[in-house]
Formats: sequence, C-alpha cells, structure tokens
Amino acid sequence: MKNFISSLAASWKENDSLLCVGLDPDPAKFPLHLRDKPDAIFEFCRAIVDATADLVCALKPQIAYFAARRAEDQLEALIAHIHAKHPGIPVILDAKRGDIGSTAEQYAIEAFERYQADAVTVNPYMGRDSVEPWLAYKDKGVILLCRTSNPGGSELQFLPVGAGALHGGMSASPSANTPSSVTASPHTPLFEHVARLVSQWDTDGQCALVVGATFPAELRSVREIVGNMPLLVPGIGAQGGDIEATVKAGKTESGSGLMINSSRAILYAGKGEDFAEAARKVALETRDAINRYR
Amino acid sequence: MKNFISSLAASWKENDSLLCVGLDPDPAKFPLHLRDKPDAIFEFCRAIVDATADLVCALKPQIAYFAARRAEDQLEALIAHIHAKHPGIPVILDAKRGDIGSTAEQYAIEAFERYQADAVTVNPYMGRDSVEPWLAYKDKGVILLCRTSNPGGSELQFLPVGAGALHGGMSASPSANTPSSVTASPHTPLFEHVARLVSQWDTDGQCALVVGATFPAELRSVREIVGNMPLLVPGIGAQGGDIEATVKAGKTESGSGLMINSSRAILYAGKGEDFAEAARKVALETRDAINRYR
Repeated sequence: MKNFISSLAASWKENDSLLCVGLDPDPAKFPLHLRDKPDAIFEFCRAIVDATADLVCALKPQIAYFAARRAEDQLEALIAHIHAKHPGIPVILDAKRGDIGSTAEQYAIEAFERYQADAVTVNPYMGRDSVEPWLAYKDKGVILLCRTSNPGGSELQFLPVGAGALHGGMSASPSANTPSSVTASPHTPLFEHVARLVSQWDTDGQCALVVGATFPAELRSVREIVGNMPLLVPGIGAQGGDIEATVKAGKTESGSGLMINSSRAILYAGKGEDFAEAARKVALETRDAINRYR
Repeated sequence: MKNFISSLAASWKENDSLLCVGLDPDPAKFPLHLRDKPDAIFEFCRAIVDATADLVCALKPQIAYFAARRAEDQLEALIAHIHAKHPGIPVILDAKRGDIGSTAEQYAIEAFERYQADAVTVNPYMGRDSVEPWLAYKDKGVILLCRTSNPGGSELQFLPVGAGALHGGMSASPSANTPSSVTASPHTPLFEHVARLVSQWDTDGQCALVVGATFPAELRSVREIVGNMPLLVPGIGAQGGDIEATVKAGKTESGSGLMINSSRAILYAGKGEDFAEAARKVALETRDAINRYR
C-alpha cells in the first residue's frame, strides 16, 4: 500500500534528499511584486514548491500562516497543486494538533480529508487516545512532538521522569490510569519517554517524531530508542542547528531516516522577482551539505 | 482594564454561574430542520447561545468542528454575534495550539485578531517561549492544558517528575536550558509541575488551566498550587465527571474560580425544532446543580 512512510522512503531515494522545505509564508517578507496579489500566499508558495520539488523528500506547510490571514482556500489549492504536479512528494501539514478523541476525529478530517495532507504533526501531551483518531487513517503519517527545537522546550521535555513512584497511589479516581506499560528509569527525560511511548503506540508503522537539530546529543538518544522511525528535524538554518552534527546524530544505519526541515533560510533567500531561483540555490546547497554527512 | 479575567469575574457574578457551554457543533447530530441549511453550523450555535447566554460564565467554541467543514466564516460570524448580543460573556476559542514563537505569533493573530476570541486554550509541551506570544495580548486569557479529562491524559501528565537530577548534565548543547527555576520534588506528577510553571509564567494575571472533572483529587491539588487562578473544567456530562466532587475540589474560598464546561449534554438535549429550549433546560439544571455545592 502506498502510504506516507513508503512515499517518504521513495522520495528520499528518488531525489537523493533528506531535505524538507517548510512553507511558512509571511506576506511581509514576500517580494514586492507579489504583495498586492489577492492570492499572493498561494503564488509565493507555488513558486517555491515548483523550484525545489526535485530537491526535497517532503514539503511542510505550516497552517498558522494561512489561518492568520483567512487563507485556508490557498492552503487547499497549494496542497492540491503539490499532489498534481509533484505526486511523489509527501505533504506534511504542520498543525501540532492535540485533543480528546471526539475532537481529534474532527481535526483528522480537517488535515487528511479537507486538506489531503499525507501526514500531520501532533502534540503527545494528551496521550494515546488523543492520537488514535489520527492513526485510524492507515495510509497517513502521524508525527509526534518529542524534543522541540526552541529553548523553552526544555522546560517540560527535559524533565526527568520515573513511571514507578506514582503507580496506583496518587489518585482515588478509578479512571486515573497508570501511565502505561512503558516504564521509565528514574532519570529518563520526558522526551525519551515520549519516544518510547510512540514506539508502542505505532502498531502499524505510521509514526514519526519531531526532534530539534539544536540538540544533537538528544537526537542521537532518540534514534537509539526508535530504530528506523523517521525523524522530522527542525532547527537548522534560521534557528542555528548544525548540519553535520544533526546528520551524524540522527541518520539511520543506511544513511537515511531524516526529514531535515528548513523554512526561512530557503523561502526568503531572495527578495526580488527571482526569489524562487534564489530559494532553489539554497535548497540545493542545503541538500548537498546534508548529503556530505550521510 | 477590561480583560478576560475581569470579564469572567463579572459573568460569574452577573449570571450567578460557573457553567461554560462548549460549542462543538456536529451537523450529524443537528435537528433535521437545520441540516440542509447552508449556514447550519452558525444557526445551530446561535440558537444555543441565545438560549443559554444568561446562564453561563463563558462560551467555548471548539475550532476543529468548524475547520473540519470549511466553516471558518461561520465561526467568525458566531463570535461576532456573541460579542454583539451578549457582550458580557467571554468567548474561549478551544484550539489547543502550541508552537515555537514565530508560529505562535501567527496562531495568536488567528485566535485574537481574526476570530476576536477573549481567551484561547494552549498546550504547554513546548514551554514558556511558545506561550509568550499569546501573553503579549494583555487583555486576553491564555488557558494552558494541565490535567486533561481523557484517560490517555495520564500517560504523560501523571508521570512523576524531578527537576534536579538532570540539571546541566544531560546535553552538551549550550541551548539546552535547565528546566527553569521552578523545581519539583522527586514525586511531583507532571501536571502539578505544569501548574507551578504556569503560575510563574503568568506575570500579568492572564492565565488559567484546564483540569478535568474526571480527577477531583487532582483538581484539588491544582487549586492548592494556583490560588485563585481560574480553572476550565471539562468532563462533566458526557464524560461522566461528578458535579459535587468537582465543585468541592475546585472552587476558590469565595465559591468561584471555575468554568465548568458541558458540551454534548446541553447541545444535543433535544432533537426537534425546540432543541434550543431543551438545551436551556439542561443548562439551567446544570448551573443550579453546580451552585448547590459552591
């Protein structure tokens, strides 16, 4: 069956690329000739997509940039364009949703049926039953936040957790489940525990994890936990993550397994009418820089 | 300054109510006479709002139900209607967003500028810098997930965390901040640590927390941590939480401090043309049942 993971494996190989281009369209940064067009967001993103599609393993539109400007129709048109013109490239809708099951079902309709995304980013804070409605779409990918690239990510994700101490004791409520059969040693940081949980939830091989490039040592520890599970790695480019350290820490034994995201450094590489060519140039350099360390 | 927290305090008093009506409009459950209308979602929600607005402290539309059906325009119209016809009632946009700062800024534009919500629900997993763009809107409320009402919430939120063990040791990355100056005892469950973190983030009195009615003992422990901070409590009604236990565990000393949410039990109380009257009847009973234990 064609599904997100197999499409990703094909595009890794076909385009010889671990690069994911993040589509975070901010009209204030668009070239002047596009700014006043009614569908400027679509036109900008389409030009970037068409200029880089043969250099990437995936494309990742970030929904907030569309929703902030009432541009849901342009997001729909953009994803339809990608599927029509670049059918081998999986589309990850970066939405970081997370809610109880009945609401998660609605979000899954939004991402997978309305927008026709191939995969979506999801927040794990609410646990397995909040993720199951996404997993019910067997051909789709579910990419759980694990270790995010921002400094504040440490506040929760870096906390040491131990699953044993509270078992059965903390709450009188019969519905207060113990954390699950995945147990953590007393010094496991939360993000590693999340990596183990997701490995358990992923009964049909649909999951991936977000692990920031700003923490190579932690990227390595997640890779050791999850085997060949794909990792979506933000944080190179504008956020300062190092490509060599990222690839060496995160790749699988076969030199693959990563979707290394770059957004702003590619999207806004040029400011003139040739912005898409400028984006292609940076995308090519980034793909090749990544490939040097595979 | 009129802001979310002061509006909430006024509606608690004015309507003598701790009830929040959750607007989760599922067209498959609408009365037959509404189903084929082009703006059925708006019409359904407007009828519920107009029938219950004098009985509630807040109204909480859940964005997924609108986004799944391309009905963003109906959500905009609904919130505009509430502000115009029921100006004392704060609107909580239930969206559970959570992303890095530059993206969180876009989500904040979506919630606060496009939809004109008075408050929004936000996921804390990515830490303080992911919450700050929301807090920059000083008149708005930011409601962080703490202890959610679903069974799977336990998997992460119930884990015991200790902030001491990993300080400075785990990662070689200079950007790997220690979790913060809030330290946890070795047996603090994650949700209590989140309650303490949010108390620290909330320098201007804008925050609230989501704590499920399905865990009264934990609701009590959060109340002890956060003083008078408002708590949004889902889980009564369809999810089975007990009203008496919830109110007794969660109220402040003055018998207030709660937004007790009910969605499905009120929205779908009736199936006929009198569905709004049926909803009002259940809302009134629920408000009064809550008030018996304040």
